[in-house]
Amino acid sequence: MADRRPVLAIDIGGTKLAAAVTERDGRVIVSAQDPTPRDPDPELLWRSLCLLLGRVLADAGLREVGSLSGVGAGCGGPMEWPSGVVSPLNIPAWRAFPLRDRLRELFPGTPVRVHNDAICLVAGEHSRGAGRDRNNVLGMVVATGVGGGLILDSRIISGASGNAGHIGHVVVDPGGPECACGGRGCLEAIARGAALVAWARGQGWRPGEPGATARDLAEDASYGNEVGLAAFRRAGRALGIAIASATHLCDLEVVVVGGGLAQAGRLLFEPLQAALRAHARMEFARRVEVVPAALGPDACLVGAAALIYAGGRYWAGG
Amino acid sequence: MADRRPVLAIDIGGTKLAAAVTERDGRVIVSAQDPTPRDPDPELLWRSLCLLLGRVLADAGLREVGSLSGVGAGCGGPMEWPSGVVSPLNIPAWRAFPLRDRLRELFPGTPVRVHNDAICLVAGEHSRGAGRDRNNVLGMVVATGVGGGLILDSRIISGASGNAGHIGHVVVDPGGPECACGGRGCLEAIARGAALVAWARGQGWRPGEPGATARDLAEDASYGNEVGLAAFRRAGRALGIAIASATHLCDLEVVVVGGGLAQAGRLLFEPLQAALRAHARMEFARRVEVVPAALGPDACLVGAAALIYAGGRYWAGG
Repeated sequence: MADRRPVLAIDIGGTKLAAAVTERDGRVIVSAQDPTPRDPDPELLWRSLCLLLGRVLADAGLREVGSLSGVGAGCGGPMEWPSGVVSPLNIPAWRAFPLRDRLRELFPGTPVRVHNDAICLVAGEHSRGAGRDRNNVLGMVVATGVGGGLILDSRIISGASGNAGHIGHVVVDPGGPECACGGRGCLEAIARGAALVAWARGQGWRPGEPGATARDLAEDASYGNEVGLAAFRRAGRALGIAIASATHLCDLEVVVVGGGLAQAGRLLFEPLQAALRAHARMEFARRVEVVPAALGPDACLVGAAALIYAGGRYWAGG
Repeated sequence: MADRRPVLAIDIGGTKLAAAVTERDGRVIVSAQDPTPRDPDPELLWRSLCLLLGRVLADAGLREVGSLSGVGAGCGGPMEWPSGVVSPLNIPAWRAFPLRDRLRELFPGTPVRVHNDAICLVAGEHSRGAGRDRNNVLGMVVATGVGGGLILDSRIISGASGNAGHIGHVVVDPGGPECACGGRGCLEAIARGAALVAWARGQGWRPGEPGATARDLAEDASYGNEVGLAAFRRAGRALGIAIASATHLCDLEVVVVGGGLAQAGRLLFEPLQAALRAHARMEFARRVEVVPAALGPDACLVGAAALIYAGGRYWAGG
């Protein structure tokens, strides 16, 4: 008989911790979130997560051991995979933190699976979002960083160490700006939010607020600010070039773009499409579609749940 | 009981037609080859292939219908896949030629599978060559063109239309030379043999022969010719950048490089490694190895046989 027990899904990011109890098809029953503590103590962060999980399970009326069919978690990378020992770039408190083992101790006898948050995002968009019924999908998050995950031949791709999908470090301009990864000319070095802001400031953009973000830059650009427009053209072009490369290498059907910067809409998508169409000319590559993500902030939670309820497709980690 | 009957493997390229009868583990029992006819008649090419197949089957002592467990063929791309309707760029006689159906008519009741030759190459190197026991492999052919095939999470990747692996059209220099695909700055536009020769001529290289090739350029470079050295540095750097991008996107363990240009050895591999190490800096990406192909000209035949004898891993086409 099919397991009908719900799944506990977790999304651990630099800004927020989120959790949900979902049906076996990924529909969210209840969810909750808290800000990610800034304290450097790894145990304080862990306890905050435990409290959040307790709250969401109570909200769902789940109090019995064994009432869950599994626990799926997406966490910022990089990580050791499938061991789920995580060192999220944007969460300094956790370095080599044994997240998967800790969750196993908390939920003994229950399957626990941990993967990169961008890989969970593409699993979510593939199972219930903009990549539904497609077999070859790149999911992208364009925000503080530029991350991604791949579905190829209908299966999630993990790669040698669970880090497949790092589209942010595809090289789009070999002589371009230095990247935080140590390389040069990576997509992320041009298209992450802070890179747009820094470039625009260098070109003379003077926002009203000292802590202005890419969202403020998008607003100025939408009012016709030339530097703002040029910053989004530059980032969109870099995205289009990287997507052309990924399409040629992986024979993609659809690229799903989410994350805060994707909210800029045609400011970003028009130059993206122009560069993609200039560089992807072979017939198979011209067919690729680029679409906005459909699940919004829930995508990672839905995908984390899918690591459990559709493990045959989304989990190869044992 | 396991099927112990041998496999007929076929490799159809712009220069030669090759065929082999192999054991169930890919070991070649007998093989033969003929030059590819230059005649534009598609049926003349097909009859030449039939004669070659008849010869190699006779050499192996196979005269009975049913003595084969299957027929696997690698053919130059692009193609429609899995239908095996082929239009090889370098074989103008065949445009939308129904290769798979023709082979089925020739071998009724026997499984017939056709894939891109670069995908067969990586299947061969993965099953019996330099990618053995590795789960995440990019196989590359650097020759008249720059092609490739991907093994990820231990399975061949076909992509939306069977064209995954087109590393030659990863963009390495967005403002670079025009590519035959219609794009600009593709790896192939810089690193294919004819691109090296054209660039070197533009820089003042004056070979003795009017029809000089990349092999002549490599020879001059090995004697210290500065333009020749610079041409291989430029191509090696482009290869290193594309491999860095592919490693980030696919989390590769090993890249196997074959094809005529790979014979240039350190002329090509030293600048390749330097560019790769400059651009692949994250820990997971630094682990990638680049190695020469091990099977030489047999790689595609061995992989074509593997489409049959290890179809679970190398064939997803029905």
